[in-house]
Amino acid sequence: MRSNRIITRKEQFDNKVLRLNETLFCNANGYIGVRGTLEEGVPAPLSTMRGMYLGGVYETIPMKQAESLYGLVEKKQTMLNVADTQTIYMYVDGEKFALNEGEVLSNERILNMDEGCTVRQITWKSPEGKTVEICIKRVAHLDIPNLFTTEYRVKALDFEGEISFESIHDPDVKNYSDPSDPRLAAESVSYFEIDQPEIKNGISLCRSKTRVSGIQIASAVKHRLIEISDGKLTEGREDAFSNERVGTNAVSAAASLTLPKMGEAVLIKYSAFADSLKEKDPAGKVIDVIEKAAARDIEDLYSTQTMIMSDFWTNAGMEIEGDDELDLAMCFNMYQLFTSSPRQKGVSIAAKGLTGEGYEGHYFWDTEMYALPFFTLTDTRAAKRILSFRYETLNAARDNARLLGHKKGALYPWRTITGEECSGYFPSGTAAYHINGAISNAIISYYLATGDEEYILSEGEEVLLETARLWMDVGNYDRSGRFVINEVTGPDEYTCMVDNNFYTNACAAQAMKWAVKLAREFKDRQQIKDLRKRLDIDDAELDALKQASEKMFLPYDEEYGISPQDDSFLQKPVWDIAATPKDEFPLLLHHHPLELYRYQVCKQADTVLAHFLFPDSADRQTMEKSFRYYEKITTHDSSLSTCVFSMQASRLGLREEAEKYFGDSAKLDLYNRHGNSGDGVHTANMGGAYMAIVYGFAGIRISEEGLSIDPFIPANLKGYSFNFTYRGRHIMLSVKEGTMSLKLLSGDDLEFIHCNEKQRISDKGVIRQWVLEQ
Amino acid sequence: MRSNRIITRKEQFDNKVLRLNETLFCNANGYIGVRGTLEEGVPAPLSTMRGMYLGGVYETIPMKQAESLYGLVEKKQTMLNVADTQTIYMYVDGEKFALNEGEVLSNERILNMDEGCTVRQITWKSPEGKTVEICIKRVAHLDIPNLFTTEYRVKALDFEGEISFESIHDPDVKNYSDPSDPRLAAESVSYFEIDQPEIKNGISLCRSKTRVSGIQIASAVKHRLIEISDGKLTEGREDAFSNERVGTNAVSAAASLTLPKMGEAVLIKYSAFADSLKEKDPAGKVIDVIEKAAARDIEDLYSTQTMIMSDFWTNAGMEIEGDDELDLAMCFNMYQLFTSSPRQKGVSIAAKGLTGEGYEGHYFWDTEMYALPFFTLTDTRAAKRILSFRYETLNAARDNARLLGHKKGALYPWRTITGEECSGYFPSGTAAYHINGAISNAIISYYLATGDEEYILSEGEEVLLETARLWMDVGNYDRSGRFVINEVTGPDEYTCMVDNNFYTNACAAQAMKWAVKLAREFKDRQQIKDLRKRLDIDDAELDALKQASEKMFLPYDEEYGISPQDDSFLQKPVWDIAATPKDEFPLLLHHHPLELYRYQVCKQADTVLAHFLFPDSADRQTMEKSFRYYEKITTHDSSLSTCVFSMQASRLGLREEAEKYFGDSAKLDLYNRHGNSGDGVHTANMGGAYMAIVYGFAGIRISEEGLSIDPFIPANLKGYSFNFTYRGRHIMLSVKEGTMSLKLLSGDDLEFIHCNEKQRISDKGVIRQWVLEQ
Repeated sequence: MRSNRIITRKEQFDNKVLRLNETLFCNANGYIGVRGTLEEGVPAPLSTMRGMYLGGVYETIPMKQAESLYGLVEKKQTMLNVADTQTIYMYVDGEKFALNEGEVLSNERILNMDEGCTVRQITWKSPEGKTVEICIKRVAHLDIPNLFTTEYRVKALDFEGEISFESIHDPDVKNYSDPSDPRLAAESVSYFEIDQPEIKNGISLCRSKTRVSGIQIASAVKHRLIEISDGKLTEGREDAFSNERVGTNAVSAAASLTLPKMGEAVLIKYSAFADSLKEKDPAGKVIDVIEKAAARDIEDLYSTQTMIMSDFWTNAGMEIEGDDELDLAMCFNMYQLFTSSPRQKGVSIAAKGLTGEGYEGHYFWDTEMYALPFFTLTDTRAAKRILSFRYETLNAARDNARLLGHKKGALYPWRTITGEECSGYFPSGTAAYHINGAISNAIISYYLATGDEEYILSEGEEVLLETARLWMDVGNYDRSGRFVINEVTGPDEYTCMVDNNFYTNACAAQAMKWAVKLAREFKDRQQIKDLRKRLDIDDAELDALKQASEKMFLPYDEEYGISPQDDSFLQKPVWDIAATPKDEFPLLLHHHPLELYRYQVCKQADTVLAHFLFPDSADRQTMEKSFRYYEKITTHDSSLSTCVFSMQASRLGLREEAEKYFGDSAKLDLYNRHGNSGDGVHTANMGGAYMAIVYGFAGIRISEEGLSIDPFIPANLKGYSFNFTYRGRHIMLSVKEGTMSLKLLSGDDLEFIHCNEKQRISDKGVIRQWVLEQ
Repeated sequence: MRSNRIITRKEQFDNKVLRLNETLFCNANGYIGVRGTLEEGVPAPLSTMRGMYLGGVYETIPMKQAESLYGLVEKKQTMLNVADTQTIYMYVDGEKFALNEGEVLSNERILNMDEGCTVRQITWKSPEGKTVEICIKRVAHLDIPNLFTTEYRVKALDFEGEISFESIHDPDVKNYSDPSDPRLAAESVSYFEIDQPEIKNGISLCRSKTRVSGIQIASAVKHRLIEISDGKLTEGREDAFSNERVGTNAVSAAASLTLPKMGEAVLIKYSAFADSLKEKDPAGKVIDVIEKAAARDIEDLYSTQTMIMSDFWTNAGMEIEGDDELDLAMCFNMYQLFTSSPRQKGVSIAAKGLTGEGYEGHYFWDTEMYALPFFTLTDTRAAKRILSFRYETLNAARDNARLLGHKKGALYPWRTITGEECSGYFPSGTAAYHINGAISNAIISYYLATGDEEYILSEGEEVLLETARLWMDVGNYDRSGRFVINEVTGPDEYTCMVDNNFYTNACAAQAMKWAVKLAREFKDRQQIKDLRKRLDIDDAELDALKQASEKMFLPYDEEYGISPQDDSFLQKPVWDIAATPKDEFPLLLHHHPLELYRYQVCKQADTVLAHFLFPDSADRQTMEKSFRYYEKITTHDSSLSTCVFSMQASRLGLREEAEKYFGDSAKLDLYNRHGNSGDGVHTANMGGAYMAIVYGFAGIRISEEGLSIDPFIPANLKGYSFNFTYRGRHIMLSVKEGTMSLKLLSGDDLEFIHCNEKQRISDKGVIRQWVLEQ
């Protein structure tokens, strides 16, 4: 068994490392996200994305179109950097601590995923030769979503003297803008109206309001100062800190201590955040949170955090044997998924979680298609919360469908925070109607894995029906009587606005089939009766949906024996990936969209994902030929690609490929494989890497026929194990040494299929084993 | 024979009429364009687009994309309102003349196309009861492109008293912004750095420079004042005008006269303009122009103008008998084409000519496809000048092709002033590669009609070869060995980025065929040898172009027996035009592009235009079936549509349709049929209406086989006649009373085909007649 889940990195004074570390050592708890920026700041010209974000908190900003066309989106939402409570300056006998001054004797950053905290460990000799040991621990508290704490310890190693702190609380912050891009820098604006800060009982309270969206944000900060010398702990006086306003809106709290040699000064900074989307009285809330937190021993808060993490790891229990790097990368991925998952309704998981401003904090299809399975299999309540976001924003999706000319149904926005479309380039934005498919597929998958009828009756079926209706309206029967869907963009954004994208059509068929199936299965339930009345759906409409689903055109190419990505894809010339210089990837940053659209070249898995999700959409031979075909023309410029290739390779028994693609996916952020993790993690890919193990290596399928498990062990691994939940049962699966072991941890008897045979486990807590065929 | 070409309209104090009259009574001479705004201005809330434009003078302004993608255009050019020399205030004994004060007893506007001038005729009683007759005549001088004059006559009908003038010269002007659109109004900015005006020898001189494009603009104004009483004309003293600076940059010139009853005051205002794109010393140029013009009798200037117009009408000689409205509309159309045609190289004809700011003064494919044939057949030198614009901007088109990823060839921009792409929405902008086809077709048509080998050798063939190469690069052989062109937008913008747009493919085949044909025909000419060396075009490349041309895929639909607009067009559902509310047209202003793209609905002629241009692209039956098919699904939301339907209907012998569509096209601007002529005329449609007579009714075809003429007389007309040039011959054609009459006005013997039989005319000045079959 694993001893610890700890990531340690050297800090370096280099822009790329700094930015990457800001992402990797981010603290988040599903509500607050704090980039791992340095407390003392960085000197120019280093560029830092210094930010604290609150899930779901946004400003509405203009997004002018170069040419105005009817229905094009002209405003968008953007996630906000809401305040700076990270900044703490420390002085050693008046010498200001900075990594570019004096001498840095050691300097490490640590992400402790067992304890849910980050730590900086520095030994620093000041220019005048005084050496201190610095340890800074940060926690975004998982049980108190409004609370973030910093514990700043300084030990005087070789001198007696004064340690001073100057701690900042500043609500007057801006979003990141690249200092090397004058155009962006010029646009860097303050999104807030800010009240004068208040200071009361040692607590500073800042209140701001976004100018357009009108969201009130409150933040409160309180400090404690402790001296430890000769093993004795002395709490600082209540009035150790002098709080003073600096500038117009910021508050600075200063305090100092005189230490003996080997004495230690400990500053504890409590920051609380709340916003008016979730709280009636954000200011009251933060004061309350701060007072309660400060009244508790900090170690008590830490032990709760450790307990929550321990529960999480026990629940998910993932371990990979035989490759420690991969194992740690997977821990990191799951940790990120867990800490980015919202703690309240109305919020979802952004493309970069809460770790950075990339993609402006928008939610995409990624959440449902890639991140959700992890929650569905490890924390069904979290999964349901995430799914609820789409139910909460169903009316916005209906409005969006009307704007696009659809008389019925709902079309979810390609990128959004509140449910309104925020995509400025519709050919690879709004035209990606398959977002609807990701949502309907997630609902169906969640239902199959949990059996949560109540969710289907109260929320799920309404969303399903409305997405099904959208497909009915967007598609039509062609002259051969096939149901076709024209002018949409599939997952592969290197081909836009095409006819009969295989993936989209397959998603649509599934949504239509299930919307009808569940409406009929639960037709006698009052909730369904009410729903059908409210939506005005008669039997004829259900029949029509069913028929369209059955007549759905899924293209097939006789000559190549593959599923073509869309009607015209295979008549285009093939992009010569091998002859393309390395520095031209990702292609979208170096080639005009029109050029890309004209070639057979894929940014990511598209038809391959369809084959994986819908095992009946083609026969095995077609799938294998398709996999081989698309493999050659896919650049994986999207982070959503390799995980899918891995899963499908597993399914097809292409074990070598499955392992290779899995590695690419699993290590993406921790090893910065795409070179852009500094802007934030790739949350969806993290979920994809999880799927590559669970659905891929372990061969877990959950369908109408129930659960089936057909695992294999990749050649370079010794094995792997994880826990998952299935219809109320908690199950441990371990695959190693040629055997599959299963243990029913809790819940009713488990039936499943293995090697086409029914298996049954009734004994709880007993390990059952099966020998795997090679 | 026609007695006069005069359009008279009542002026009305109504926004729509005012704006329309500003367009209809515009003065232009191919360099200067002056909107027909009222000298005295209009009171709020009336909205005027007050502008004076100079052909080819622009500013470069930012055009931010909502989402940045590689290669998307982020700046554009815009035609500039360069100065205001229109404004003249007039006072009757101190009472300021204004149409909304006192009593307007009569008020007419006149466009005199025989004399090339506009006139305002007003009888006005002041609030205090003094009646004046006002006559204001404006001329943009065709022989002096830099000169614009205003003659302002005031007659005291029933009083003795003082008439004063206050005449403004203001370089500090802005482009039009809709006052009801706060977003646009906020962006209304000054594009100029302006020097302090100078006043010397009674001439005010203003100099400005555009901030980004750095174009220097000079304008000069001089006045004369004349008194006419008792039949005696008295020239005002040299110093009758006091020139004074008003505001920062404007000059006001004031003068007054005391008139006896029935006495008349005449102000003559000379305005001259020049810019540094065409003149080394714009200020010197305008002073020179003003001094020379003011030294001449104004009547002398007028008679030159009348003479030029008379030559023009004699040369083109269009007359329609049996429908005076149509006849006048055609005069108006031809007058507009003539006065918008550039007088210098490097400039082309904008979508709205010089009559308004619609489409920002950009040149589109319209110029070559729709406007050019008029010049080719009436004024070959003007045609050659217009064609030269594309040669002058060939390097910019090469750069554009590289940006789009094409290793060879040139891709002309969809909209431009200097040759750089100014389209902000590439799916119906840059993707409209058929702009290349319009240009190559124009070159070929010009060559066939004129036999101008020197043009082909010095400019035409280079453009042809480079457009042909572009097609080679954009297209590819598909799996059946057909040459296909994917991901382009045809003329119909309601369907974007499609594969094998019939029209585009046909254009490409023509360009490739002719580029090779002419390269081989003239292979021994030194210019061609040099050109091929310079462009590095070997025989193998020519062979490849020829082969691609021959293998070009022109789609055909077996079931319908028509040419499909593109590969996927016919599988889309048909838009229900009949069920669409009238106020939802044009559709693009009321429907999202994605919705439009998903239906069979055409903004304009597309395949029908291809059939007309390329008679060999389909058989007669296919063309007729196609015409009928597309007729039903075309909204004619574009002004480029009905003229094409008319021409093709004529070709197919659908005389009723030919006449109906012709009327829609011919009357578009004069009768404001699209409701938007207030933003400027639709220049291309005017050329299209000309073609509908010449190529349509008169059945003129000029091909490799030579000239053929097969006219008919539409049922509601008595006949029509016009003159045209063909390979150095000037020919009169008259069709009426069941006969076709031809007269060779000048040039060599004429051979042509009529009713499939060769005809020959040798006698100059003799009318030859043929009886027409019914």
